[in-house]
Amino acid sequence: MAGLCLAPLFGALPEARLKTLAQACRLKTYSHGEVLGHAGDALETLWLVLGMGLIKLSRETADGTEAVWDVLGQGEIVGLETAVAKTPTAPTTAVAVGPVEVICIPHEAFSSLLEDGAFARAMLEHLSDQTNRQRLETEHRAHQTTAQRLGCFLLRLAHTPEEGEATVRFPFDKGLLAARLGMDPATFSRALGKLKADTGLSVSGLSVTIPDIRRLTAYTCGSCSGTYPCLTDGPGA
Amino acid sequence: MAGLCLAPLFGALPEARLKTLAQACRLKTYSHGEVLGHAGDALETLWLVLGMGLIKLSRETADGTEAVWDVLGQGEIVGLETAVAKTPTAPTTAVAVGPVEVICIPHEAFSSLLEDGAFARAMLEHLSDQTNRQRLETEHRAHQTTAQRLGCFLLRLAHTPEEGEATVRFPFDKGLLAARLGMDPATFSRALGKLKADTGLSVSGLSVTIPDIRRLTAYTCGSCSGTYPCLTDGPGA
Repeated sequence: MAGLCLAPLFGALPEARLKTLAQACRLKTYSHGEVLGHAGDALETLWLVLGMGLIKLSRETADGTEAVWDVLGQGEIVGLETAVAKTPTAPTTAVAVGPVEVICIPHEAFSSLLEDGAFARAMLEHLSDQTNRQRLETEHRAHQTTAQRLGCFLLRLAHTPEEGEATVRFPFDKGLLAARLGMDPATFSRALGKLKADTGLSVSGLSVTIPDIRRLTAYTCGSCSGTYPCLTDGPGA
Repeated sequence: MAGLCLAPLFGALPEARLKTLAQACRLKTYSHGEVLGHAGDALETLWLVLGMGLIKLSRETADGTEAVWDVLGQGEIVGLETAVAKTPTAPTTAVAVGPVEVICIPHEAFSSLLEDGAFARAMLEHLSDQTNRQRLETEHRAHQTTAQRLGCFLLRLAHTPEEGEATVRFPFDKGLLAARLGMDPATFSRALGKLKADTGLSVSGLSVTIPDIRRLTAYTCGSCSGTYPCLTDGPGA
């Protein structure tokens, strides 16, 4: 099951362990909108995303609004951070966005990997990165404007140290992107309009042309405590 | 060095390991405003907070605004999440708020604890919790109003399943609290004014009287995907 190696965390596993893991896994395809698991479920399976589909991770607020926590794509694993919790319970509902093929990894098989000191170490490093990444996103929601947050998302897709023009593609539709960025659709539209007016970028369908990376970073990154080019770890990062 | 046990993570260490760790540590007192370490420094020391002082963790945005990532108090450890990174580099500048006594834990001594499988496991559990906690804070910054975010902070201080009246104390001054909640001082004042008007709470100095916990949760928690009473892990949580 070569797909396991799409996850950087599994790429470094000794071959024998990878083989044992693969034997415990199976492939499965979900169609658009299908629920893989619900928030609050005991975590029995982790899902590694293959191919081009995506998985939306969301929760519902008490008053019924959907809060999108993340959108995972190829090589990313649903449940990874929860799998090492004391009582592994899915914090989010996982829903397929587009048809998506996944490797189903039994939680037990994943847990047994942690007996390997090197794997446990890699997992610690991953969670350490993840925590800081998440803190930076929290910072962004207080310190960046909505137009800057959208600009930041596009810059992380471009992820180029080069200057000049760049073209990127929204990895999912604008409705989901708005939700992922914590905006309602009207706020997102205003943010996109402002970003176009202020930095000259243009949008055609899902394709976005950034005429000048430097102009966009000057506009966006002033309100961030990080430096560009910055880390990215997937379509919803 | 009994103070080490203030950190839940160290509380479960076998006595011999705790003793070895204690021998590598030393006590130090910082005065208000003193910098313990700067963002970008290689992580050489972790600081466990003793007594009543606090440590502010912040970064500076490119345009010079301070972004407060956290405020840690008794039993919390500065650098804990970074200590297991591949290249442990302090993500934030750590500054004493009030005189604060700390236990300085050499990074090397901490790292050697990770050879113990049970400790590595506890550290994984801690980071797993931390990531979800941080994701919930990110959600709050998009889905809660500023008045709700302040109400949420007060509820976590109250942390009571009881109904009726409760009194809590701001753990630090309003300027720092505003920054910790990602608000400028004027926004914070408006949020506090609105919260008083909408839920009847009253403030005298650092003391806050919540006349009706249920009224405050009804006001605050509708826009959150969690449930009250919720987890808290320190004065800046």
